[in-house]
Amino acid sequence: MIIILKQGTQKEKINDFIKDLEGLGVKTHLSAGEHTTIIGLVGDTTVVDIDSIKAIPMVEDVKRVQEPYKKANRKFHADDTIINVSGKKIGGGNFAVMAGPCSVESQEQMEEIAYKISKSGSGFIRGGAFKPRTSPYSFQGLEDKGIEILQKIKKATGMPIVTEIMDTADVSLFENVDIIQVGARNMQNFKLLKELGKCKQPILLKRGLANTIEELLMSAEYIMAGGNENIILCERGIRTFETITRNTLDISAIPVIKKLSHLPVIVDPSHAGGIAWLVEPLAKAAIGAGADGLMIEVHNNPQKALSDGAQSITPDEFDGLMKKLAKYLELENKILAL
Amino acid sequence: MIIILKQGTQKEKINDFIKDLEGLGVKTHLSAGEHTTIIGLVGDTTVVDIDSIKAIPMVEDVKRVQEPYKKANRKFHADDTIINVSGKKIGGGNFAVMAGPCSVESQEQMEEIAYKISKSGSGFIRGGAFKPRTSPYSFQGLEDKGIEILQKIKKATGMPIVTEIMDTADVSLFENVDIIQVGARNMQNFKLLKELGKCKQPILLKRGLANTIEELLMSAEYIMAGGNENIILCERGIRTFETITRNTLDISAIPVIKKLSHLPVIVDPSHAGGIAWLVEPLAKAAIGAGADGLMIEVHNNPQKALSDGAQSITPDEFDGLMKKLAKYLELENKILAL
Amino acid sequence: MIIILKQGTQKEKINDFIKDLEGLGVKTHLSAGEHTTIIGLVGDTTVVDIDSIKAIPMVEDVKRVQEPYKKANRKFHADDTIINVSGKKIGGGNFAVMAGPCSVESQEQMEEIAYKISKSGSGFIRGGAFKPRTSPYSFQGLEDKGIEILQKIKKATGMPIVTEIMDTADVSLFENVDIIQVGARNMQNFKLLKELGKCKQPILLKRGLANTIEELLMSAEYIMAGGNENIILCERGIRTFETITRNTLDISAIPVIKKLSHLPVIVDPSHAGGIAWLVEPLAKAAIGAGADGLMIEVHNNPQKALSDGAQSITPDEFDGLMKKLAKYLELENKILAL
Amino acid sequence: MIIILKQGTQKEKINDFIKDLEGLGVKTHLSAGEHTTIIGLVGDTTVVDIDSIKAIPMVEDVKRVQEPYKKANRKFHADDTIINVSGKKIGGGNFAVMAGPCSVESQEQMEEIAYKISKSGSGFIRGGAFKPRTSPYSFQGLEDKGIEILQKIKKATGMPIVTEIMDTADVSLFENVDIIQVGARNMQNFKLLKELGKCKQPILLKRGLANTIEELLMSAEYIMAGGNENIILCERGIRTFETITRNTLDISAIPVIKKLSHLPVIVDPSHAGGIAWLVEPLAKAAIGAGADGLMIEVHNNPQKALSDGAQSITPDEFDGLMKKLAKYLELENKILAL
Repeated sequence: MIIILKQGTQKEKINDFIKDLEGLGVKTHLSAGEHTTIIGLVGDTTVVDIDSIKAIPMVEDVKRVQEPYKKANRKFHADDTIINVSGKKIGGGNFAVMAGPCSVESQEQMEEIAYKISKSGSGFIRGGAFKPRTSPYSFQGLEDKGIEILQKIKKATGMPIVTEIMDTADVSLFENVDIIQVGARNMQNFKLLKELGKCKQPILLKRGLANTIEELLMSAEYIMAGGNENIILCERGIRTFETITRNTLDISAIPVIKKLSHLPVIVDPSHAGGIAWLVEPLAKAAIGAGADGLMIEVHNNPQKALSDGAQSITPDEFDGLMKKLAKYLELENKILAL
Repeated sequence: MIIILKQGTQKEKINDFIKDLEGLGVKTHLSAGEHTTIIGLVGDTTVVDIDSIKAIPMVEDVKRVQEPYKKANRKFHADDTIINVSGKKIGGGNFAVMAGPCSVESQEQMEEIAYKISKSGSGFIRGGAFKPRTSPYSFQGLEDKGIEILQKIKKATGMPIVTEIMDTADVSLFENVDIIQVGARNMQNFKLLKELGKCKQPILLKRGLANTIEELLMSAEYIMAGGNENIILCERGIRTFETITRNTLDISAIPVIKKLSHLPVIVDPSHAGGIAWLVEPLAKAAIGAGADGLMIEVHNNPQKALSDGAQSITPDEFDGLMKKLAKYLELENKILAL
Repeated sequence: MIIILKQGTQKEKINDFIKDLEGLGVKTHLSAGEHTTIIGLVGDTTVVDIDSIKAIPMVEDVKRVQEPYKKANRKFHADDTIINVSGKKIGGGNFAVMAGPCSVESQEQMEEIAYKISKSGSGFIRGGAFKPRTSPYSFQGLEDKGIEILQKIKKATGMPIVTEIMDTADVSLFENVDIIQVGARNMQNFKLLKELGKCKQPILLKRGLANTIEELLMSAEYIMAGGNENIILCERGIRTFETITRNTLDISAIPVIKKLSHLPVIVDPSHAGGIAWLVEPLAKAAIGAGADGLMIEVHNNPQKALSDGAQSITPDEFDGLMKKLAKYLELENKILAL
Repeated sequence: MIIILKQGTQKEKINDFIKDLEGLGVKTHLSAGEHTTIIGLVGDTTVVDIDSIKAIPMVEDVKRVQEPYKKANRKFHADDTIINVSGKKIGGGNFAVMAGPCSVESQEQMEEIAYKISKSGSGFIRGGAFKPRTSPYSFQGLEDKGIEILQKIKKATGMPIVTEIMDTADVSLFENVDIIQVGARNMQNFKLLKELGKCKQPILLKRGLANTIEELLMSAEYIMAGGNENIILCERGIRTFETITRNTLDISAIPVIKKLSHLPVIVDPSHAGGIAWLVEPLAKAAIGAGADGLMIEVHNNPQKALSDGAQSITPDEFDGLMKKLAKYLELENKILAL
């Protein structure tokens, strides 16, 4: 941590301040220049509250030089984390595809989609039972009935299921869910993150619309600090001034996260672009950028979907897509988790 | 609602589509131009799912022309909503100041601050018991003990209290809280919004860091649709590329919201700027732009604050600020809620 | 400047690197922690190219701690700069209003507007002769004829004129223009900035749609480094995800710029909001936030304006606005430049 | 174009307005609903000024339904445009790589880089003679001497050259430049775009940091409207709130532009990420997303580069990269322009 002092600060005050800082257990180094005086802090600076330091009159600015996350940090965990879900691996060269409709609408719908996408190479089936919708007047999901349908599909097809949790009150309903998803809007629902830290299942943590990569890693840290280190991160687009696409897929986030963290990262091209014909180019780009998996919305009849119809592809389109992606995975030496 | 069709769509297909649309109970008008064919939909278009329409191959784009919110819409409720909290009014010419520390730290701290800000003209006292912190290693608030301290302060000073809820599981703890705050990160925690729709207390709803004004009004609509129409909106800065300030205060949001909605809007200059010396200019700007109140962080010792020290002002600075603001309120014919 | 080194860098390499750095004429301080090693650089660090340092394999990151601008920096020029245009002062407690139409359309139009706004208290008249339009098919301005009309208006009314330059090739045409405006899209047209450094007239420099405050000050520095230190900065809204307003007025930029720089700052509420009814609340907010002036679009017939009709107010509305603003200026002890 | 009227507008006024509109030569269709009345405009709506319409009191909002660009629009030019530079093709399945240093520093430097990248598969050599630098105190380029060096390199190696123009005054210096680049900061320097419309050489038009895809196409339209239809578009990252990367590469822009326009699109992964180790993943992603080429910064000694060292790769790294990219190009059936 670097503390930059205001011009003209008296030496005595600086010395007192340094004593205070060292009292916190960190070491300091003073660099006094003509126009700028800097105090460098080394050691465990997590004990130092940046906001309080900034509130001190003689302080002009404070800059952190170490990442604020530990468990998610590759510096302290050099090898890729590999998540194992019923024998299917994600990360460390293993590539996961999680396909399915935006919302679970009925058992018939889910069955029809599940068998088809399984044949095409999706290792997991996704589907929303609890749906975060912008309007209170939109379809809100089948809720617990949706979870029940997912369990039946899992029994019938053997595919592990991925579905979103929205509230701490629902944790018990997710006991038999294989991968619990935290949606973009809940990335900083810290109470929920803490509860999920006590769960055993892997957590699929989506990046918030306006959250930095560092904040995403801090949210992963919340869950990990609670005891659950099985986190899959998901880039699904951020909000920018561009309006043609629903969001702006931050493709650079993939290599950046893989540099900073050991956790696997997947990409959701359906939500990122918000348009069915964007899924293919964005999925290819994701593999090229180093992603460990994809989450893709597939609906048997997008025009009748109860949510997100515009960005869903059909099972046939998904089959064609998977054939093309197989060649990209080969180039990157990635093994499809089946 | 306007549906723009792709060039070269066959007339028969268009006619079939129009029949489908009218089957939903809306009226249609067809405008066929050389390069563009448009279907205009009038009537209750909330039954039409835009995403599904966009998924239809002949459709190029869909544009909404009516606001998606009803209860929060000034078109259906021309007069300003006035919120009444223990006789103190907010909105419709009544101006509310809610001051206090970021976090409730101890009863002594709260008492010291409460008496001082009350004298200076703060009608309400704020203080966080449950704290949404980016890092799991930061102070997380006194939780239920914090709520207890706030109740004692209320008894002692008579000031109504404002504090933040983070989870549906905590609703019962907030029974005696006068104004329940929903933080920026929970603006789209829809489960929480639904629960708060069942409460009787006014809800202070903060705009999310990357949420549009329309989304803020939709979140208000969630609570109102549940039965609680006492909503105070709060602009507290949005996330942009500028990094000198913590957030970018969207000052235009105030007149825009007041045009679109009848709900009162307050401004939080402390979080918006993130720097103590920005509180005064931003508070003045807020009054000039038409705000119905201010939420200001005041701490008796910002350098020792357990959170947000850099943006807190002292009780003395608050007193000086209130004297200056009084003249601005006079210009705008606003009555301070005391 | 702070250089953060990668973990595990050999001591010898660090010593060699320090020698290289000191060879550039700066002093260094080494802080070696368990996980982080930092080199602090003091002295004239403008000679050090951050990008080249970042390219060195042992370097993890580089952070600047001093502002990269000198002439625009308040640290080296504590007093407010006051710009004097034909006896009318801007800055240091003097408030300038520059009103007029978006485009100069005809002499009759300009005359009608000029006499009216002059009576209402506008000290300057603005009007575009060269118009930066997004579409090549839109009206592009009267160009040199527009400048001629402005000169006549100046003769007739005595009001100094403000108009925009778009190209280095036109500099000679601006010889008798009192304040030369650089539009938002040209804020980083460095060739143009250099040319304007050779001019004697004050430059009104508008902030770019996606430019930081620091970049705005660096563009001012370009002009000042060329010899012209008469710069008026202008905040006119930045681009964010919000779409109801044309841009998002960064109201905090005003106090921030006044803290960092001695140059006067004005606000353009017309372009910021893009809607006529937003001009009043944003103008009041600007004064509250400490602005040194306003640039306001006034058109005698907004519905027939050749550009920006939606955001123009009428001369009558302008007159009403000025009466209200007078009271705000009084509160801030600002003197209207007439 | 769709005009939405305010509630309660009198029928007579609407009829008068419709007559006015039809007087402009467009056809209208009126849709009157209970809460909303809409006028649909069909025909050549480019004659209608949206801003003036919005200024009419009875108008609530105006929405465009047709793209504002014609010459750049794929609707009126279904086939991919293929740019031919001395026999090297760009677009329509032909892939161009333009490598070289950020700045032309000396003939020796350029020669060393040119021969190496040519062997590795770069079809073109790039290098800046005129450099847009944020600071007036940074290296500003060799200017005309830089152009001379580029000409010599072209003679020696046969590689067409790409270099940036910053000012209309320099057009004559670019007569023998094969591809004239317009930098991101000049994307809306409309005077420059108009001048380039008169040139014969292909123009490489970079997207501005805060410009939408539609604005990029409008800037292309400017040049095309002037007579020069040889435009290569370039996505080089946009500005968002994320700070780890220099910019955020908008990977979706590639398939979106190719859907909307017939012009070729290339990607600049060096500027987008701003970090050398991001070039490879972003380059692969670009090919996966459908790009027609890449612009890559290669420097023989990044640590001594006079600009952009941190994002430059070495000729050896470039050689390794090109070998990997060859396989991606094969998958996409793209032919490398050599």
